[in-house]
Amino acid sequence: MTDQTAFSADPEALVAGLARDGRAAQRQLARMSDGQKAAALRAAAQALRDHEADILHANAKDIAAGQERGLTGALLDRLKLDGERLEGIAAALENVASLPDPVGEVISKSEAPSGLDLQRVRIPIGLIGIIYESRPNVTADAAALCLRSGNAALLRGGSEAVHSNRAILDALTEGLTKEGVPEAAVQLLPTQDRAAVGAMLKAAGLIDMIVPRGGKSLVERVQNDARVPVLAHLDGICHTYVHAAAEPGMAEKLAVNAKLRRPGICGAMETLLLDSQFPESARIVGALLDGGCELRGDKRAQALDSRIVPASPEDWDTEYLDAILSVAVVDGMDDALSHVAAHSSGHTDAIVTSDADAAQRFLDEVDSAIVMVNASSQFADGGEFGLGAEIGIATGRLHARGPVALEGLTTYKWQVRGTGQARA
Amino acid sequence: MTDQTAFSADPEALVAGLARDGRAAQRQLARMSDGQKAAALRAAAQALRDHEADILHANAKDIAAGQERGLTGALLDRLKLDGERLEGIAAALENVASLPDPVGEVISKSEAPSGLDLQRVRIPIGLIGIIYESRPNVTADAAALCLRSGNAALLRGGSEAVHSNRAILDALTEGLTKEGVPEAAVQLLPTQDRAAVGAMLKAAGLIDMIVPRGGKSLVERVQNDARVPVLAHLDGICHTYVHAAAEPGMAEKLAVNAKLRRPGICGAMETLLLDSQFPESARIVGALLDGGCELRGDKRAQALDSRIVPASPEDWDTEYLDAILSVAVVDGMDDALSHVAAHSSGHTDAIVTSDADAAQRFLDEVDSAIVMVNASSQFADGGEFGLGAEIGIATGRLHARGPVALEGLTTYKWQVRGTGQARA
Repeated sequence: MTDQTAFSADPEALVAGLARDGRAAQRQLARMSDGQKAAALRAAAQALRDHEADILHANAKDIAAGQERGLTGALLDRLKLDGERLEGIAAALENVASLPDPVGEVISKSEAPSGLDLQRVRIPIGLIGIIYESRPNVTADAAALCLRSGNAALLRGGSEAVHSNRAILDALTEGLTKEGVPEAAVQLLPTQDRAAVGAMLKAAGLIDMIVPRGGKSLVERVQNDARVPVLAHLDGICHTYVHAAAEPGMAEKLAVNAKLRRPGICGAMETLLLDSQFPESARIVGALLDGGCELRGDKRAQALDSRIVPASPEDWDTEYLDAILSVAVVDGMDDALSHVAAHSSGHTDAIVTSDADAAQRFLDEVDSAIVMVNASSQFADGGEFGLGAEIGIATGRLHARGPVALEGLTTYKWQVRGTGQARA
Repeated sequence: MTDQTAFSADPEALVAGLARDGRAAQRQLARMSDGQKAAALRAAAQALRDHEADILHANAKDIAAGQERGLTGALLDRLKLDGERLEGIAAALENVASLPDPVGEVISKSEAPSGLDLQRVRIPIGLIGIIYESRPNVTADAAALCLRSGNAALLRGGSEAVHSNRAILDALTEGLTKEGVPEAAVQLLPTQDRAAVGAMLKAAGLIDMIVPRGGKSLVERVQNDARVPVLAHLDGICHTYVHAAAEPGMAEKLAVNAKLRRPGICGAMETLLLDSQFPESARIVGALLDGGCELRGDKRAQALDSRIVPASPEDWDTEYLDAILSVAVVDGMDDALSHVAAHSSGHTDAIVTSDADAAQRFLDEVDSAIVMVNASSQFADGGEFGLGAEIGIATGRLHARGPVALEGLTTYKWQVRGTGQARA
């Protein structure tokens, strides 16, 4: 193991040492079977339960420090652990243990003209860096998804959760190592020095991918500074377009759900586009306003209800994450598609329509990671997509898009079997 | 179209303008059918033939300028076009036209617990930047692969081929636009200013992926400076391990082919590992030496033949791209795997063995893009893998690895079809 104290003054050397240890551990992990990895995750869940008192004690220290630093109630709530939440974290580990192991899957198989047998076989990516804020459950959740897919993890949690994260990791490590997982398979950066985060972001060739989990400013910094590939989304500016042929009751139900079920999640609708030929727009905006949502509209939207305030140009590019919604009236599909192309963040956009051709055109032409017909954009979630969990939602164009779970934490290699072929 | 002259003093504005035009063209391209794209590529092939005189005339200018600048014979040969080579370029376009269109393929299909119908559908990546040297055929080859997969291309060729590249692009554009491809779908950077290459490398959000095609110094610069994802390999330090249980005749044939068939390609063997228990190592090195190969060996390898010169420590990390080979004697599989892990560039590594367990262990534990059993590493090629063509070979860990053709130029989106589901 790297002597971490020796490098405390040199963040790059610290990260390089941790990364080398992590990569060595990953090579051992890559040789563990499906059953061994699953057993290790179950042992980690049990260790979390066994160490409940230690973890809650550490968490109390973080909460006390947070209160002293004047963290908001919402932040303290995200930080807070109790028996029930800890049991939730342990159960999530067991859930990840029960997911199918993606490693070893044969993605494609063919015979080359030369008679070579070609297979693309799924393998782990390597060492994944996770940079996150507040919620200590990410320590366990992210580590579990990495391990299940044969990757090592280098974690960097927020300073406000430093004791909780360490206590959770210690318990995890106790369980995992019992079942043969090397200790360095999951490591927590031992310093809150921001320069160490910078060193992680620059560690191309040592860290294979970085997943930021947190607010927009964290993701922005990671995307701007990283030399390592990043899996992330910056914004969730999600649109719902109520087409002329939408069924009015469905449109009302979906608009209210997409905005108000949980306004603060990345899949929440931020802009509602109402077709000028849709006859019941007033009903939709009325339901949203009655539900307590502030509506900011263009001229034609404002004409639908006197409670709608004027939208500024910035509103069309704003992720409110709150009970606020921008509303525009559009003239048909072309106009709707132009608005989405100009303002969507590429996360999730939806249409409500009973016209199959309109639905297909929207699915084909909207260039977002997730495009939906007749469903609430709040479904944009790995669990809801049946992936069992998610490491995050990605809006980049390469590797993996939308909700990313175990498959997105793998890559492949070509395995080629010959019988002595030399190339002509 | 962007007024290119207005931006000649501002490389960033030039690249941004070209990229915006390219992205707009790509959106039109994405709506073209398989048949339309194929017809456009066939029309481009015909236009190349029709403009043979123009293209060869432009090429003669480049050759004359190259002779004046004192380019080596090898470089002049790579630059040189004649009727036969031009016909080869046209035929390659027709070949790409005949490949199956990857766009629209349903990668996965499932039903979520909520009843949502989920499909991952293959789509183009967007705008691909290609930065290349010397060979003017890349202008046509790379553009064709991008177009076949629905992507726009922004090309930057080498200064030595500036007239040839422009003449080829003009002919391509004439053919493509006849069949409805927008003119900006394939663009050539109109300046040889190196700052414009820098602007391409930094154009995150405008260019979706960059593929460098050329020598190591070009690839190195692109990998170091790019803020856009890069698909590339830097080195092809490929190993062949002759296991104790290798069939001697096969080992000799494969070692000679892997090194000497074409020593200058990235899949050529650069290091030969001979197992100390393999009884016929002297025969293998003898055949290589007799074939005109310089061998640089460790102590035990040198003992096999007096013609083997001593290897320096740098030899194990050197891609010769020539009739030179480093040779080490290793003690069994563990030793061989350690050597490969320490020195492979992750491109292609091979084992020769009749022992199925040894073969499987090598396939499982060598962490390279391509791992081969009983075959020459010179098969590392998209054409030989049955992909029909290749845009390049990638040794990165994300998105696509090994030979990359049309599939690697695509990504996917989630298409979600509901019947009015709101999230609970």
